[in-house]
Amino acid sequence: MAIVYLTRRERFNAAHKLKVKGWSAKKNRAVFGKCANKNFHGHNYELFVTVKGPPDPDTGFVMDAKKLSKLIKKEVLNHLDHSNLNKDVKFISKNTQPTTENLVILIWKQLAPHIKKCALHSIKLYETENIFAEYFGE
Amino acid sequence: MAIVYLTRRERFNAAHKLKVKGWSAKKNRAVFGKCANKNFHGHNYELFVTVKGPPDPDTGFVMDAKKLSKLIKKEVLNHLDHSNLNKDVKFISKNTQPTTENLVILIWKQLAPHIKKCALHSIKLYETENIFAEYFGE
Amino acid sequence: MAIVYLTRRERFNAAHKLKVKGWSAKKNRAVFGKCANKNFHGHNYELFVTVKGPPDPDTGFVMDAKKLSKLIKKEVLNHLDHSNLNKDVKFISKNTQPTTENLVILIWKQLAPHIKKCALHSIKLYETENIFAEYFGE
Amino acid sequence: MAIVYLTRRERFNAAHKLKVKGWSAKKNRAVFGKCANKNFHGHNYELFVTVKGPPDPDTGFVMDAKKLSKLIKKEVLNHLDHSNLNKDVKFISKNTQPTTENLVILIWKQLAPHIKKCALHSIKLYETENIFAEYFGE
Amino acid sequence: MAIVYLTRRERFNAAHKLKVKGWSAKKNRAVFGKCANKNFHGHNYELFVTVKGPPDPDTGFVMDAKKLSKLIKKEVLNHLDHSNLNKDVKFISKNTQPTTENLVILIWKQLAPHIKKCALHSIKLYETENIFAEYFGE
Amino acid sequence: MAIVYLTRRERFNAAHKLKVKGWSAKKNRAVFGKCANKNFHGHNYELFVTVKGPPDPDTGFVMDAKKLSKLIKKEVLNHLDHSNLNKDVKFISKNTQPTTENLVILIWKQLAPHIKKCALHSIKLYETENIFAEYFGE
Repeated sequence: MAIVYLTRRERFNAAHKLKVKGWSAKKNRAVFGKCANKNFHGHNYELFVTVKGPPDPDTGFVMDAKKLSKLIKKEVLNHLDHSNLNKDVKFISKNTQPTTENLVILIWKQLAPHIKKCALHSIKLYETENIFAEYFGE
Repeated sequence: MAIVYLTRRERFNAAHKLKVKGWSAKKNRAVFGKCANKNFHGHNYELFVTVKGPPDPDTGFVMDAKKLSKLIKKEVLNHLDHSNLNKDVKFISKNTQPTTENLVILIWKQLAPHIKKCALHSIKLYETENIFAEYFGE
Repeated sequence: MAIVYLTRRERFNAAHKLKVKGWSAKKNRAVFGKCANKNFHGHNYELFVTVKGPPDPDTGFVMDAKKLSKLIKKEVLNHLDHSNLNKDVKFISKNTQPTTENLVILIWKQLAPHIKKCALHSIKLYETENIFAEYFGE
Repeated sequence: MAIVYLTRRERFNAAHKLKVKGWSAKKNRAVFGKCANKNFHGHNYELFVTVKGPPDPDTGFVMDAKKLSKLIKKEVLNHLDHSNLNKDVKFISKNTQPTTENLVILIWKQLAPHIKKCALHSIKLYETENIFAEYFGE
Repeated sequence: MAIVYLTRRERFNAAHKLKVKGWSAKKNRAVFGKCANKNFHGHNYELFVTVKGPPDPDTGFVMDAKKLSKLIKKEVLNHLDHSNLNKDVKFISKNTQPTTENLVILIWKQLAPHIKKCALHSIKLYETENIFAEYFGE
Repeated sequence: MAIVYLTRRERFNAAHKLKVKGWSAKKNRAVFGKCANKNFHGHNYELFVTVKGPPDPDTGFVMDAKKLSKLIKKEVLNHLDHSNLNKDVKFISKNTQPTTENLVILIWKQLAPHIKKCALHSIKLYETENIFAEYFGE
């Protein structure tokens, strides 16, 4: 049976900064540069969620893209959109830097338990047009 | 020998609707929403065809991208561009929903027999900026 | 007082064909090419609505972009999205070709009466990545 | 003499929220929705600065695009990039909402005095892919 | 009668360098930087041609976009695509720097005499995603 | 430990032509078409470098994206940007066609020895919006 990969794009806007708590201001500045600025900065994040499986013989859907969108909104965007990633999000622990790399792992954990009839394949997240991270659950 | 993946983008514009023949209008509406609208809607489809192989030692080509483009036009775009995917296309059976997922499988079948000196690697198709499907022939 | 131009992008997907009723099939084919194909084709239309006015001293808004979005959905997208532009849309007369040029005029007429505290400046519509039309109400 | 319009794109990332100080939390919420969230959110802002004038007969430049870029960095990006628009920026008064509409006016005021051999024509700023504002100095 | 602006996008790839003949190598380097490199560099140019006029009552066209495309190919792209802008193009004089600013003026001159039933409105040319020039014939 | 893929986009502008030295002008023309034009043409190349590894527990970085950017500039862009790929680049041998396919292999070789704490995963290069190549080091 043919396995097809279906991707849904969503977007969210959030503030963050990068700062290791146990480090001095000087070391944080040296490692993170202006990403450590005290009062936060922010991004338009662009999220790509890919699921895989055989298209349903009747509907031709691997998964209903509208349902996938609703699920992403419920489990991910409702937490992250218009949030402060350092302060507001339950599933980002206070000791975890809200880097793009860590976010793709955390978003995977939010979504994976809810993808049931097909399989979650990857989480890809653009922080800017020049930087993105991707995670395949491994 | 180094294996390189070469991708060619093409575009086509087509009308379609989603509707299972054996289902009631109500069930089609419940499953497909406005995608089941009677008189069709349409999309600017964006197609990415990827082939793989070693670059030729003389030309540096995995495959001549112009020849790949001509092949895609002959075997795919001439059938799909400015068509109605529910009515006009010989290689889409009347019992197959013209979803993005089914289209990538069907486009693979159109192209695979004609890629000879290198190998077809994937067919990726954007239906909108928010939804795309990809198929690797497996 | 400073006049600022605020633009909101929206998208809709629709089917259409181009065909003058009084013309022979041959003449329609000669003028419109494959755009005259019998069973329709379609597009992902990308719409840019621009309003102008002074930003409100309190809110900093020329117009609330969320309200502008709701207005566009009510007066334009609810009619055009997932429609057949030749058959389904009340504000497109049967004698009007649904070209991008005619659509920007018709969309202007739909929206202009409802833009009250600032002024409608332009309607811009992409049919494909290579063709768009713009109308300034003149 | 031919007048040509030259545009330079730059980008910056910033946090902000929208909140009128004299208003209740309830009214701020009603007007600004989640844009009023307490701990800020943020955006990848995309800035287009357009100058106009006759190309220099020797260099063919309306203005050296590299010098324009340096000027934008000095007068605008050094203040706004990786900043909190509500807290960190000297040229945004505490009573001014950091909306896209107000930002284009403020960026114009930062740049206009420094464009000397040609003329500043417009400041255009994207907040998201769906919303942008433009200001022509009038 | 409603005046609509219709834009067609085309693309061409070309090599160029910037160098004033009467200047020393040092001065060329100081003014043009690496754009003066001896053996040329190049760009994917993106060209937007806008015409304006009333849509034809029958066809709904300001101008047939396919004919506009053919005209641009004949008068502009056949000269510029896969060319060296310093060496190969008859309508670029040897004393004219092939800057984006000069190119929009020269492309206007190539096209304007051939736009007959409607009017040429603007020529816009992207040299990179960060720099573009526009000319309105004035 | 979770393995995340981090990608950095960079851009460079270069001239090139395609021409096999031992072939006649006629054969070069037959195989390469206008890509064989004598005086070169050029492109805005868009480069995506992907590295993979576990995010650092403190910083949340697979690799500092700013350091990755600096490395790409030093080992790749300083050689390729504003260059003539047929004449100016030490790591492109005179017998190697500067095709996108060959470039991704050569860029891999430039970068791989310098990626130390994580692993180089892929080099992807766009020549135009319609053609790109990718190499995974195999």
